[in-house]
Amino acid sequence: MDWKSEIDAAAARIDGHVVRTPLLQLDAAGLPYSVQLKLEQMQHTGSFKARGAFNTLLGEPVPEAGLVAASGGNHGAAVAHAAHRLGHAAHIFVPEMAGASKIALIRSTGAALTVVPGDYSNALQLAQDYEARTGAKQIHAYDAPATVAGQGTCLREWEAQGLAADTVLIAVGGGGLIAGALAWLAGRRKVVAVEPETSCALHAALTAGEPTDVEVSGIAANALGARRIGSICLDLAQAHLGDSVLVDDDAIRTAQRALWQSSRQLVEPAGATALAALISGAYRPEPGEKVAVLVCGGNIAPDPLQE
Amino acid sequence: MDWKSEIDAAAARIDGHVVRTPLLQLDAAGLPYSVQLKLEQMQHTGSFKARGAFNTLLGEPVPEAGLVAASGGNHGAAVAHAAHRLGHAAHIFVPEMAGASKIALIRSTGAALTVVPGDYSNALQLAQDYEARTGAKQIHAYDAPATVAGQGTCLREWEAQGLAADTVLIAVGGGGLIAGALAWLAGRRKVVAVEPETSCALHAALTAGEPTDVEVSGIAANALGARRIGSICLDLAQAHLGDSVLVDDDAIRTAQRALWQSSRQLVEPAGATALAALISGAYRPEPGEKVAVLVCGGNIAPDPLQE
Repeated sequence: MDWKSEIDAAAARIDGHVVRTPLLQLDAAGLPYSVQLKLEQMQHTGSFKARGAFNTLLGEPVPEAGLVAASGGNHGAAVAHAAHRLGHAAHIFVPEMAGASKIALIRSTGAALTVVPGDYSNALQLAQDYEARTGAKQIHAYDAPATVAGQGTCLREWEAQGLAADTVLIAVGGGGLIAGALAWLAGRRKVVAVEPETSCALHAALTAGEPTDVEVSGIAANALGARRIGSICLDLAQAHLGDSVLVDDDAIRTAQRALWQSSRQLVEPAGATALAALISGAYRPEPGEKVAVLVCGGNIAPDPLQE
Repeated sequence: MDWKSEIDAAAARIDGHVVRTPLLQLDAAGLPYSVQLKLEQMQHTGSFKARGAFNTLLGEPVPEAGLVAASGGNHGAAVAHAAHRLGHAAHIFVPEMAGASKIALIRSTGAALTVVPGDYSNALQLAQDYEARTGAKQIHAYDAPATVAGQGTCLREWEAQGLAADTVLIAVGGGGLIAGALAWLAGRRKVVAVEPETSCALHAALTAGEPTDVEVSGIAANALGARRIGSICLDLAQAHLGDSVLVDDDAIRTAQRALWQSSRQLVEPAGATALAALISGAYRPEPGEKVAVLVCGGNIAPDPLQE
């Protein structure tokens, strides 16, 4: 696939529908070096997922039956938001583990919502049944070319804003965001995948040499808890990934606190996972190596201002 | 005073000691027009106050006895942080109304801290007694030229980043931040002062034609609750201020929620006060008038990640 063309087209398509999220040079958080952050949690619905959702809805025909998506929460909120803005019906299936804040966020868009016992894979099964029954268009959370190309606009935008780094650290769940980044960068910069020890589908697949099912748990599981890595991501990772590292929940909590204390950025565990690799030392830059971190989601629970 | 030269000098002095805070174009929050935000709550210690503190400490001799400051919280945290970074002792006097989060923030810098019953004016009295007794250098929270010049670097930086607005809305407590903005802009753009109805020292002074004492209360009082406007601010406001508007606590709460829901920015009431003027309609832009809002502080209580 000509990913550069796909991502250029996606960027043109979603322009005006998504937020051009700001950068922050972080010289704090106890690190002896500076880190450039892209604050993608400021995106509509609080995560990068709005990029892939708008790219899919604007680039492909939407049937009368509307849209269906299964989601740990952030993808569902993004699809529901994009559908609402573009005048389509949407039905979102989320696992209970998505949590009250994300469920309320989806509900606020006016989308139909089914909360499913269990984890993401259970929600995906029901979404597939719904698709088969109604003819609604399924938008996969990470393993579809239009989703990956949409997420790839994040790195494209970052480079246009002045990405100042040799190495970019990105948290991985199902792999849509990092796939978009790898597709856009195509080896021009080093990309480091960061996963929770307890939700590490990419790490497991790289070790096994093929997609493999993993158990998912931990504080970031409602955003990063994919049981199996996307095949688009795995192919791109095998071609271009610089490194794959793991962090534990304590490291993620520490990074969340560091982002709040240093910069008053309150993010969900998944949003702090990439930074956790630097603070914990799971990834140690070489002397002089400039690093950047993609802060990918802010839908913390409970909503800190919920009444 | 040649404010442009003072602010240029301040910017050179504090370069590397303060955060170049990012901008965000806000196309949400229920407003029918776009608003450019400067996210100054990402500054060190969570507010613009670090600018004035570093400018004063780097531009003036500091005695052996160190520094003393009275503060509703944010200024004290900034002075304590700057003193710690530059190797000076500091003693901070805060009123109880500063709240636990701000008091903990000051304590975390290692500064000596005295919590004073009552409001800001009580803390100021004790700080002045301490200054007279010890010879420590007093850093006024808003009514000193070095403080105002330091805060003025915020607008200088914003213009360098591409301030895209005819009109800038700024929250006012004692008036240090807006004084710096008025001093820098000198009438080149319209500046709108926004104060809580229950803490409106500038509005009262403009009405009376001279500084006048006001009662202070309400949810933003621990940051904006100055009983009397600074004389530097009042002089600059009489020369250059475009408009003075008031908002109530409900409007401030609504703006806080809007910043979280639209952009995952969690700010203290004072930090949302300027935006509240737009959302509530206390300030209504003319058709085609481009507006910008300075988000000035993020030290919300309780600390959302405190354990």
